[in-house]
Order: sequence, then C-alpha cells, then structure tokens
Amino acid sequence: MTVKRRPGRRPGSADTRGEILSAARKVFAEKGFDKATVRGIAREAHVDPALVHHYFDTKEGMFAAAMRLPITPDVVIPALLEGPREELGRRLVTLILTVTAEPETREPMIALVRSAVTNEHAVTMFREFITNALLYRVADELDVPHLRIEAAFSQMFGVIMARYVLKLEPMASADPEELAELLGPTIQRYFTG
Amino acid sequence: MTVKRRPGRRPGSADTRGEILSAARKVFAEKGFDKATVRGIAREAHVDPALVHHYFDTKEGMFAAAMRLPITPDVVIPALLEGPREELGRRLVTLILTVTAEPETREPMIALVRSAVTNEHAVTMFREFITNALLYRVADELDVPHLRIEAAFSQMFGVIMARYVLKLEPMASADPEELAELLGPTIQRYFTG
Repeated sequence: MTVKRRPGRRPGSADTRGEILSAARKVFAEKGFDKATVRGIAREAHVDPALVHHYFDTKEGMFAAAMRLPITPDVVIPALLEGPREELGRRLVTLILTVTAEPETREPMIALVRSAVTNEHAVTMFREFITNALLYRVADELDVPHLRIEAAFSQMFGVIMARYVLKLEPMASADPEELAELLGPTIQRYFTG
Repeated sequence: MTVKRRPGRRPGSADTRGEILSAARKVFAEKGFDKATVRGIAREAHVDPALVHHYFDTKEGMFAAAMRLPITPDVVIPALLEGPREELGRRLVTLILTVTAEPETREPMIALVRSAVTNEHAVTMFREFITNALLYRVADELDVPHLRIEAAFSQMFGVIMARYVLKLEPMASADPEELAELLGPTIQRYFTG
C-alpha cells in the first residue's frame, strides 16, 4: 500500500516557499500590511508559523518576496546610511536609479504601484508598507521629520513614473549621472535641511 | 406631419458642445493628443469644423474640457510667468496645491493619471498633452532645459500622488503653506538653477 501525500500541511515540500508567498499575497491584499500576521499567513498556507519564520526573517522580507520586489528595507536602509551624510541625496538617487534600471527588477515595483493607484485594497497595503516598513524607519534612523522623507519619496516616485511609466522625454532617456546631479541636491535638502 | 429631428449634423443643438467633447474623448484616446485634429473630431461629431472652433479656441482647450480638467495651459502658463522670477517655485507649488485642493477639480486630473498608468492608449495621450501642450511650452517660455521642467513636474506629480492617491501621512494632511515652504525651493532650483 502506498502512502498518499496529504494535502495541506506539507512541512518542507519543494514548493512550500511558493505556497507561503501565495498565501502572503492573499493575506496582504485582504488585511493590508499592518494587520497581516505571520500566524495568519501560516494558517492560510496550512503550515506551521515556525516554517514561515524559517523562510522569511521578517514580515517586510516576506512582503518584498511576495511582491517580487528586488530590494527590502533591510538592504536599502543600511545602504543609505553608509557613507558621508552630505552625499546621502546623491546616494539615494543613484540607488533608486540602479535598482529600477533593469526591467526584471523594475517591473514588480511598477506593478505594485499600478495596483495601488487603481485598487483600494492595494493602496492600503502599499501605504502601510511604504510608510511603516520604509519611510518612517529611514526618517527615525536619520532623525528627519516624516514629512521631509515623504517629500523625498514623492520626488523619486515622480521620477520613476515620469521615466518608466509616462516615458516623458528627455527624462526617459536621461543619463543616470545627469539625473543624480539634478535630483541629488533636492533629496539632500529634504534630508539635511 | 411633424419634422423628425435629424440625427448627426445638428449645428447648434443644446448638446452640440457635449457631442463634440464626447467625440474628442474618443479621438484623443484613439489617436493620442498630437495626431488628433479639429477636423477629425468634427467628423466624429458630425459637425462642421468651424463649429468646433466656435466652442473651443485651441486643441489644448478642447482636451482640457474633454477630460474635465479644471485648468488649461493657457491659464497656467501666464499665472506662472506673472510676478517675480525668484518666487516662481513657490508660486507653482501654491497653484498646484490650490487647484488640487477641491475634489471636483482634483478628481478629473487623478482619473486621467489613473488611466495613463494602466492603459497604453491613455498614456500616449497623456504624455503628448503634458509635454507638448504644457511642459515644453513652459520650458521654452522660461528658457529652461526640458529635463529640468520634467524634474519639477515629477516632484509635483509625486506630491499629488502621495497626498491624494497613496494618502501617505503626514503628507496627506499637511498644511499647504508648509508644503509650499518645503517644495518651493526644489521647484525654484529646477527652474533657475
């Protein structure tokens, strides 16, 4: 007699990670980022919460993986803080332009923005992630008011939209160096006054 | 015998203007802003081109009316140029925040952005309008490189999205005065170096 594979709880099957991510997408979309829990996602995926923790250190990391984002706040924040404070603006612009330069890394971010702009559930999820997991943390690390960080975010958000979605010329074809020159001081001023 | 109202060509019926605008929306969506013509819109509306000109001075004006935009480039550009050049940044920020403060004037602009972000035809139309009818004209009037005007546009576009669509706090509830203080110098620097 063969042992039948039991559906549901499969601790360690080849696609467990994929099933967790699929459950995460569902739970994040329904509950938003703040109210989604590892426990809730584990339940949705029919796995033990410990297994979720085995694959993903943090809820932020799970969100980034679920949305196929190329970077997580845990990578962005140290990259920003490393190096001279007076070059922070230019460093941020260069980081964002580098991450968005390749379609494979850019498209999932654009997809998230598209859904946020058109869907009420998605906008809540996006808002909660972008503020609580990213912007407020950067603001607190740098001791900069939240409004100033959001001004910096809005500048970079606008640039990504103008360059890759609206495809305004000459912005769409502009050299990253030239953009860093133009936008760096804006971000720097928001961060350091 | 009663005279039946003839469908199609109705030069001056109560809703002729509405019919022209409806035709304009169709033609702009299909052809984009650049390739749409008064003649083509008149044909679509079954009216004489002279009648289109009677209702709308310019293609820009017709586009703004068709999209229910609260302002046209012909109003924005003089408003920007009036007054001291060194206060241009603040003036632009205040103008945009004022126009977008009321839902009735804001919603059509947001609707246009939403469709541009999700629809390939709409993005072409939006791109052509925003560059040829607005940004390049401002750039040329002010003798500022196109890339700098697009940097200014991207900042204000990002702010409108962060404030009204993503509704990030504290940006969403920020006082317009405080925002003008924060963003004005950014726009000023893009415009005047």
